[in-house]
Amino acid sequence: MKEKVCVVGSGNWGSAIGKIVSENVLRYPEVFEPQVRQWVFEEDFRGEKLTTIINRERENPKYLPGIQFPSNLVAVPDLVQASRDASLLVFVLPHQFVRGVCEQMKAHIAPHARAISLIKGLEIEPDKVTLFSEEIARKLGIRVSALSGANIADEVAQEKFCETTIGSQDEADGRLFHKLFHTHYFKVNVIRDYVGVELCGALKNVVAVGAGISDGLGYGSNTKAAIIRLGLMEMRKFGQTFFGTVQDSTFFESCGVADLITTCSGGRNRKVAEAFVKTRQPIDVLEKELLNGQKLQGTLTAQEVYQFLSARKMTDEFPLFTTVYRIIYENAPVESIVREVN
Amino acid sequence: MKEKVCVVGSGNWGSAIGKIVSENVLRYPEVFEPQVRQWVFEEDFRGEKLTTIINRERENPKYLPGIQFPSNLVAVPDLVQASRDASLLVFVLPHQFVRGVCEQMKAHIAPHARAISLIKGLEIEPDKVTLFSEEIARKLGIRVSALSGANIADEVAQEKFCETTIGSQDEADGRLFHKLFHTHYFKVNVIRDYVGVELCGALKNVVAVGAGISDGLGYGSNTKAAIIRLGLMEMRKFGQTFFGTVQDSTFFESCGVADLITTCSGGRNRKVAEAFVKTRQPIDVLEKELLNGQKLQGTLTAQEVYQFLSARKMTDEFPLFTTVYRIIYENAPVESIVREVN
Repeated sequence: MKEKVCVVGSGNWGSAIGKIVSENVLRYPEVFEPQVRQWVFEEDFRGEKLTTIINRERENPKYLPGIQFPSNLVAVPDLVQASRDASLLVFVLPHQFVRGVCEQMKAHIAPHARAISLIKGLEIEPDKVTLFSEEIARKLGIRVSALSGANIADEVAQEKFCETTIGSQDEADGRLFHKLFHTHYFKVNVIRDYVGVELCGALKNVVAVGAGISDGLGYGSNTKAAIIRLGLMEMRKFGQTFFGTVQDSTFFESCGVADLITTCSGGRNRKVAEAFVKTRQPIDVLEKELLNGQKLQGTLTAQEVYQFLSARKMTDEFPLFTTVYRIIYENAPVESIVREVN
Repeated sequence: MKEKVCVVGSGNWGSAIGKIVSENVLRYPEVFEPQVRQWVFEEDFRGEKLTTIINRERENPKYLPGIQFPSNLVAVPDLVQASRDASLLVFVLPHQFVRGVCEQMKAHIAPHARAISLIKGLEIEPDKVTLFSEEIARKLGIRVSALSGANIADEVAQEKFCETTIGSQDEADGRLFHKLFHTHYFKVNVIRDYVGVELCGALKNVVAVGAGISDGLGYGSNTKAAIIRLGLMEMRKFGQTFFGTVQDSTFFESCGVADLITTCSGGRNRKVAEAFVKTRQPIDVLEKELLNGQKLQGTLTAQEVYQFLSARKMTDEFPLFTTVYRIIYENAPVESIVREVN
């Protein structure tokens, strides 16, 4: 029985990943069925259906213009049809759609299916942290791995070299997903600590807000490097305090230190935080101006983390996370970004 | 018996450190003598002796213009006079002067003296690696700690927040040096692994050459983050292969990941390597043009590391270090910076 792959999602990152996965199934014909189905949320684009354009032009002109897809990647607008009998599910869509999508596909996927989550973010409520890999596992009753790394989608699509990290509890799943994702320009390391992989992908954005505040203040590269390092240490502490299984070594992986470096160099979280310091406008005004009203991930996560830590009276033990929250939401002086972490 | 501090060296970094040390001795009058002597290599500057200017203006106009020194820092041109009865020696001078300086001061320092090395670099010969802390320890017969971190001298002198790492085998020495160096803008972490601290300070420059090659090729931030991460892992492997005492945790310190980030963002090693790719001129020509003929630390260290690894038939186990060497000195294609690390 060969593996039938379904990519669930087709944004910028989903398109870049659809390309890689479709290339790789052809490299291992003994393991994978040659066709990869990609569920595309149907929309009109320049007077046509997006899936029609993708399947004719072999390109997603809305989310990844200029990048050619292999011909074995097929865009499917119907979720049930896209996921029917699929044995490998690649989740790469905005987190708010995860539950609905799982409900719809549950009765149709292969009974032995496994999944991997490339979903950014976590659900942090005052009383608990929910990982999307675990949410998918619960909803579908299958094993779920996670993938995260220093992977700006456009650069991956252009085949510029990078690394990524897959966290897989199950060794055989890890080997299979290595085959599905690894290429000469997208180097996969497989580790066991899927919790750490997902935590890094969410918490890094809080650190990037801190780095942006430092940039806005003109503090220079020593200070920024210190904030990145202190942030990495709080990410590790958060993982190890609230999830017993999180490993030190995860933070040396691409999902840890490398993704943090990338996110703190470019990236919207860093940029909007820099503008926050320079313009002194509230964050929701900047979101409207700079992000068309989309919510910034890092500030949202900072707020959720703060509420989670507050509920445990542990805000003092995470001074960088806490200070980022207080600067953004409680009018704390921006200079406290360095004063409070001493 | 209070500690008598002597700062041995007065360049850009030595001047920034002289300022910090002089501020701190006054904060702990029960531990330190109030006067800090700084050995200044005497030279003429604008028709006067440099030490005369420093002691009159409380500023080093040649190496750290615009920064005021505390009045308890005294510039002394004579090494014997500067180090006489000194019990705490801060070595912050170019490594080629270490041996001569130790010979000259040996008979004059306090019998119970201890030192700390802020010297950049290592001496790597095909048959051995010599740490300057150990070299000073051998020459003077005293215990020597090491300090290194993401510490661009000008930013430290301007009191912009950063962190640094002190490696001290002896706990009491560590506490004492913490007192001597820690301020609200220069945050000191003390660890035991002085070998790791010094190795990081030298090997980071090889990684920065790799990062500069990537920048020269226009590879973007995923690739650069991957090179930084792979470099950090080779630094760790080098330390743990050739020095049994080097700890994983050292690479999470300021001397590790933070200094590497700073060095790979700005810094001359990164910059000259970028120019190497863009102009395709040999490195010695670029050194003449861009550095007034001064030798680039990163390429020199890459060469020494390569010869050291060659002598052990271990170049394949350090693909990034080896590829940097081959690109700079053996005309390997610049693109191999990513091809060879897969």
